Amino acid sequence: MSIRVGVIGTGVMGADHVRNLHSTVSGATVSVVADLDQERAKSVASAVGARWVTDPLKLINDAGVDAVVIASHDSTHADLTLAAVEAGKPVLCEKPLAVTAEDCRRVAAAENPESPLMSVGFMRRFDPGYVALKAETHSGRIGDPLIVHCSSRTVSAYPGGSSESTVTNSAIHELDIVPWILNSPVVAASWHCGRSSSLVTDRQDPQIIMLRTADGVLTTVEVFLNARYGYDTRCEVVGEIGAARLAEPVVIHTDADRSHSYGYAADWIPRFAESYRRQLQEWIDALSTGRPSTLATAADGLRANLVAAAVIKSMHSAGATVSVEPVGESF
Amino acid sequence: MSIRVGVIGTGVMGADHVRNLHSTVSGATVSVVADLDQERAKSVASAVGARWVTDPLKLINDAGVDAVVIASHDSTHADLTLAAVEAGKPVLCEKPLAVTAEDCRRVAAAENPESPLMSVGFMRRFDPGYVALKAETHSGRIGDPLIVHCSSRTVSAYPGGSSESTVTNSAIHELDIVPWILNSPVVAASWHCGRSSSLVTDRQDPQIIMLRTADGVLTTVEVFLNARYGYDTRCEVVGEIGAARLAEPVVIHTDADRSHSYGYAADWIPRFAESYRRQLQEWIDALSTGRPSTLATAADGLRANLVAAAVIKSMHSAGATVSVEPVGESF
Amino acid sequence: MSIRVGVIGTGVMGADHVRNLHSTVSGATVSVVADLDQERAKSVASAVGARWVTDPLKLINDAGVDAVVIASHDSTHADLTLAAVEAGKPVLCEKPLAVTAEDCRRVAAAENPESPLMSVGFMRRFDPGYVALKAETHSGRIGDPLIVHCSSRTVSAYPGGSSESTVTNSAIHELDIVPWILNSPVVAASWHCGRSSSLVTDRQDPQIIMLRTADGVLTTVEVFLNARYGYDTRCEVVGEIGAARLAEPVVIHTDADRSHSYGYAADWIPRFAESYRRQLQEWIDALSTGRPSTLATAADGLRANLVAAAVIKSMHSAGATVSVEPVGESF
Amino acid sequence: MSIRVGVIGTGVMGADHVRNLHSTVSGATVSVVADLDQERAKSVASAVGARWVTDPLKLINDAGVDAVVIASHDSTHADLTLAAVEAGKPVLCEKPLAVTAEDCRRVAAAENPESPLMSVGFMRRFDPGYVALKAETHSGRIGDPLIVHCSSRTVSAYPGGSSESTVTNSAIHELDIVPWILNSPVVAASWHCGRSSSLVTDRQDPQIIMLRTADGVLTTVEVFLNARYGYDTRCEVVGEIGAARLAEPVVIHTDADRSHSYGYAADWIPRFAESYRRQLQEWIDALSTGRPSTLATAADGLRANLVAAAVIKSMHSAGATVSVEPVGESF
Repeated sequence: MSIRVGVIGTGVMGADHVRNLHSTVSGATVSVVADLDQERAKSVASAVGARWVTDPLKLINDAGVDAVVIASHDSTHADLTLAAVEAGKPVLCEKPLAVTAEDCRRVAAAENPESPLMSVGFMRRFDPGYVALKAETHSGRIGDPLIVHCSSRTVSAYPGGSSESTVTNSAIHELDIVPWILNSPVVAASWHCGRSSSLVTDRQDPQIIMLRTADGVLTTVEVFLNARYGYDTRCEVVGEIGAARLAEPVVIHTDADRSHSYGYAADWIPRFAESYRRQLQEWIDALSTGRPSTLATAADGLRANLVAAAVIKSMHSAGATVSVEPVGESF
Repeated sequence: MSIRVGVIGTGVMGADHVRNLHSTVSGATVSVVADLDQERAKSVASAVGARWVTDPLKLINDAGVDAVVIASHDSTHADLTLAAVEAGKPVLCEKPLAVTAEDCRRVAAAENPESPLMSVGFMRRFDPGYVALKAETHSGRIGDPLIVHCSSRTVSAYPGGSSESTVTNSAIHELDIVPWILNSPVVAASWHCGRSSSLVTDRQDPQIIMLRTADGVLTTVEVFLNARYGYDTRCEVVGEIGAARLAEPVVIHTDADRSHSYGYAADWIPRFAESYRRQLQEWIDALSTGRPSTLATAADGLRANLVAAAVIKSMHSAGATVSVEPVGESF
Repeated sequence: MSIRVGVIGTGVMGADHVRNLHSTVSGATVSVVADLDQERAKSVASAVGARWVTDPLKLINDAGVDAVVIASHDSTHADLTLAAVEAGKPVLCEKPLAVTAEDCRRVAAAENPESPLMSVGFMRRFDPGYVALKAETHSGRIGDPLIVHCSSRTVSAYPGGSSESTVTNSAIHELDIVPWILNSPVVAASWHCGRSSSLVTDRQDPQIIMLRTADGVLTTVEVFLNARYGYDTRCEVVGEIGAARLAEPVVIHTDADRSHSYGYAADWIPRFAESYRRQLQEWIDALSTGRPSTLATAADGLRANLVAAAVIKSMHSAGATVSVEPVGESF
Repeated sequence: MSIRVGVIGTGVMGADHVRNLHSTVSGATVSVVADLDQERAKSVASAVGARWVTDPLKLINDAGVDAVVIASHDSTHADLTLAAVEAGKPVLCEKPLAVTAEDCRRVAAAENPESPLMSVGFMRRFDPGYVALKAETHSGRIGDPLIVHCSSRTVSAYPGGSSESTVTNSAIHELDIVPWILNSPVVAASWHCGRSSSLVTDRQDPQIIMLRTADGVLTTVEVFLNARYGYDTRCEVVGEIGAARLAEPVVIHTDADRSHSYGYAADWIPRFAESYRRQLQEWIDALSTGRPSTLATAADGLRANLVAAAVIKSMHSAGATVSVEPVGESF
C-alpha cells in the first residue's frame, strides 16, 4: 500500500526528493516526475522507474498520483499548490508557499482547516539538532528563554538575487524556526546592516534581522549568503539559568597541517539530508494512517511570509521596527 | 515488490530491527516475527501488522518470508543461520555469527561463495563516523596509517558475563572494524589488564587488547563495559603525516550549572541508530536488485571470531602475543 | 631597581593587583597599600611586606611610591587619577576612568600627550584570546571584517545596579575591545531589549547593544549579567572569507554523569587572571624602560565612556541609533 | 633581594630560561650566563644586562650567583649538578638529571635529603592542564583511576637520535608525569611497536609503552616524534565512574576554507611556556623563603631514569614486561 507520489521539479531539491522517496522512505514510491526540461524529467524518472511529464497539471491530475511534492521554481508554488488542493490531493510544497505575502494569504485561504491538504517544506523542524534544541528550551534545564541568536551562512548565493530575496528565500527558514522553537509567533521585526562584502554586488550581504516574539523574547539573526568559508547554520537559545545551541553535525575530526579541524558542508543538501528524509517519512506516515502530520502547515507558511514582509518593510524604512500582520481568524 | 522479512528474536535489538524495517527502510515489510515468549512476539508483531510464531524454524520456512533477520540469543545464531541457508533464504545474523570460532567455521563453511546468503550485523561499518574515518585513512591526507587507538566504553555490562564474553560480545566490534578500516586482517593479538573496577565482580573490567594487522599497524583497544559515565565509542587512526578520529555525534551543547556539556547515549541503540537503519537499507537494496551487499560476510564473521579466540588465548597465557588462525582457502 | 607601586583599594580587584605585583610581576614591588577600611589595608599590606594608609592622597604623595594603581570605588577614579598626575606619577586606573563622560573628558584633558602618565585597566587587550583574535582579524585569513558578535555573560550582578550601570560597568569592556580589535572607533550605537529575566529586579537583563564602527562594521553585543550558568565571554569576528572567535580557555574535559563537559569560571578573576598579569607586567616594563606602554590610554578611556553615553541615550530614546560624540582634537 | 641566577647553556631552552627569569619571574635576576659558544653567551647575556663566561664551573663558583640553572647538553647535566651541589648552590637541572640510570643514581646520592639543593625540570608538573587533571583524578568525580592513556606527538625529532633516545629524551616526560598524577610509582614497563614511519630512518617511530604503577593502574603511552602535523600532548585518566583528559590549550577557533579549526604549536616552547614560567617562579619563591619547592627532586629524576631503563630493556627483550629497579632506601 505504498503512497504513490508525483514530484514536480527536478532541480537539486526535486531530484533529492525523488531519490529520498524512492530509496530511503518507507511506504512511498515515485510514480510520476514533471519538469519543463523534458530530458531532465526523463532522466530523473527513469532512474527510479517512474513515468514523466512536462506539464505539472497533468501530474497533479494523474490517477496514479496519490500525493504531490512541489519543488519547481518559487513563482509556481502558489498556483500548483492550489491546483493540487483542487484535485483533492495532499501536497508538500517547498518553501516559500508563495512569493508574496498576498499570494500566500490567497493560497492559505484555500486550505480546509477541517481536513488540511497542504504542507510546507520547512525541513529544519525535522533536523535532530533543532528538535533537541526545542526540547531543551522547554525542559526547564535552561529556564525560560530570553534571547535567541541565529547565524545562517552559506558559501555563495545564487547570482541575480536581491537584498529582499535574501529574506524571502534564505532568512525565511529562521523566520519559521525561531517561533517554532519558542512556541510563540513573531510580532515585530527590524532589519539592519553594516558594510556589505566587497565580493558581492547584487545585494546587501550580510544582513542582521531582529525579531520580537509574543513571549517577549528578542532574536538576532545574521544572514550571510556569501560567507565563502562553508555552509554554517547556528542557533542558540539563552534562558534564565542556562543556554543551549546547535552543535555542528560532524562525524570525524582531523589533525593535519598544523591544525585540528572538521569540515563544513558545501551547501544545504548534506547539512539537512537527515531533515529532508525525516520530513518526507513523517509526511508519508501521516498520509498512510490518515493522522495529521507535524509538518509546517499553510498557516505556518503564511506566517513566515508575513514576517518576511515586515522585515522587508523595515529594510525600506531605515531599520524601523515593523509590526507583523496577524495571520487572521481562519487559522 | 517489498522484501518480506521475518525477524527472529524480539529483545531490544530484534524489536529495533522490526521497527526499522517497518517504518524507516524503503522496500521492506515485516511479515513474521518469532520469539519463544509468545506475548512479546504477539505484541511486537501486532504493532507492525505482522504474523507471529514461537518456533523460529517455522518462520524460516514460512512461504511469506523472503529473508530472515536473526536477533535471538547468541547461542542460537549458528543453527538458525544454517537453517536459513538450507531454506535458501538470505539471512542477516546479528553478531556474533556463532559463539565459538569452531562453530563459526562450521557455519561459514556452509556459505556458497558464488551466491552468498549470509550477512553478519557488524553495523559499525555503516556508521557515518566510521565510514568517514575509513575514507580519511585512505585519502592521503593523514598518510599511511601507523597506529590505531580505540576505546569502547559502556555504562554497565549485562550481569553474569565473564572476561571472555567481554571479548566475544563487545570487543568483537573493534576486532571487525579495525581491519575493515585498514583493509588489512589482524594477524596477532595480545591481552592486558591492570586493576579491575571495584564496582565489577564478574569479570576483568577494563581490559586492553593489542592487535597487529598484516600491514604492520599496531592497534590498542580499551574495552570498559562498566564505565558508568556513558556509552562512548572512540577510534583514532594515526598516520605518517596526520591523524583522524571519530567525533562524538552530538546535536546540541548546553550551558548550565557552571559547565558546558553535551550528553552521552545510555547505550548502543541511540548511538548506532543510524548505522542500523543504513545497514538494513543496504541489505534490502542489495536483495531487491540482486547485487552483492556491503554488509559483513560469513568470512568476516569468522575472521572476527578467530581474532577473539586469539585474544582469549592470550588472556590465558599471561598476555603473550598470539597469532590469529587464518580464515583459510575457501574465502 | 624595582618600580615601587602604591595600590589604592583592597577589594577583590585591588587585592588581586597587590598579589600580582608582589608575586608574579618582574621588576615591581608593592610599597604602600591604601584603603578606607584600616583592617583590610593592614591585612593586605602585611601579606606582602608593604606599608599601609587609609588616605589615598597620602599614598599618592608618598616618596616611596613611584607609580600608582587605582582600584577603589568607581566614584573615586577621576579625582585620584588627577591627583596622581598632579604628583607627576604614572597611574594605572581601573576602568572606568570616570563615571560620567563629562568627568572622563575632564580627566583626559589633564593628560600630557607628550609624556602621558595615565593608563586605563582595559585588561582584555592583554587576554591571549583577544590578542590572537585581533591578529587573525588582520591576517588576511578571514578577509576584511564585516560583522562582530559579542556575548558577555556573568553569573550574577552586584545588587543595587541599574540598566545604565550594566552599560558603564560591564558592557564598557566590549565598548573598548571591539574598536581595539577592528582598529576603528565606534561612531554610532543603539540599545535594545526584550523580556527581562524574572530573577532580576534592579535592571533590564539581558540587553542587546548594536555598534557601528567607522569602518562600517556592525557589532551585536549581548550583555547578560545574571546568566547564572557561568562567566562566559564570547567574541566572533565575521569577515569576507572566514570567521574567527574566542575559544573558552579550558584545560581539562571531564566525562561523568552521562555527559562530556568543561567548567566555566565563576567570575572574571580566574577568566582574566592571565590578562591582569600581562597588563601589569607590560605597565612595569614600559615604566622601567621609559617607553610608551600598550595599555589603554586616557583617550581610550574617554572613548569608551562616550560610547557608553550614546548607548544610554539610545536606552532612553526607544532604541534609536545615537551618534557617538567624538573624543576631540587633543587626542 | 632578588635571587641572582646563573644560567648554563644558551640553546633554545637556556635562552628561554634567561628571558623568563629576567622578564616574567618575580624576585629573580640573571647575573651570569655561560656557553661554550662565546658569541651566543655574549648576545644572550647582554640582552638582559648579565655577565657571561664560557666555563660553566666559573659560573657555578661565581660569588654573584646564588642559584644555578643547567640547560646545556644532556651529557653535562650530571657533573654540573654535582659541581653546583658541591658549591652549596641550589640547582635546577633540565631533564634528564643524567643520561644513564647509573649516573643518575650517582648524582642523586650526592643530594642532602635534609636540605636538598637539586631540582629537575619536569615542567609538565606546572602545566595548568596536568595540574587540573591530577586534581580531578583525586576529586572523587571520576572515581579511582584504572587506566591512563597518553599520546606524545611532535612535529619532527632532532636527527641523529635512536629508538632509545626517544625514551630517555621524550617519553621521559610521561614516565615522570603519570606516576605524579597517580601518586604511585611505576613498577613495571613494556615496549611495543608496529610499522615505523617511512619518513624516519634513525629510530622506531612511533612507539608504544605500557606502564604498570604500584596502584595497579595500566598506562598506555604512544610516543611519535615525527608526527608531522603538530606538537600534540594528550593525557586521559579513566576512573571507575568517569574520565578526564587534557584539553588542547587554544585561544581562538577559525572558520576558513571549508573547515573549522584551531592550530597546534610547532614545538614544546609555546605549548609549555606557562609551565616553564610557573616552574621558575615556584623555584625562586621557594628559594626566597627557604621553604621546600614543589619541583621534581633528584629522587624523581632518578625514578624517571630507572623507568626509562626498564623500557629500554623491554625494547631489547622482544617487548617482555620488565620490573623497574627501586630508587632505594635513601629517598
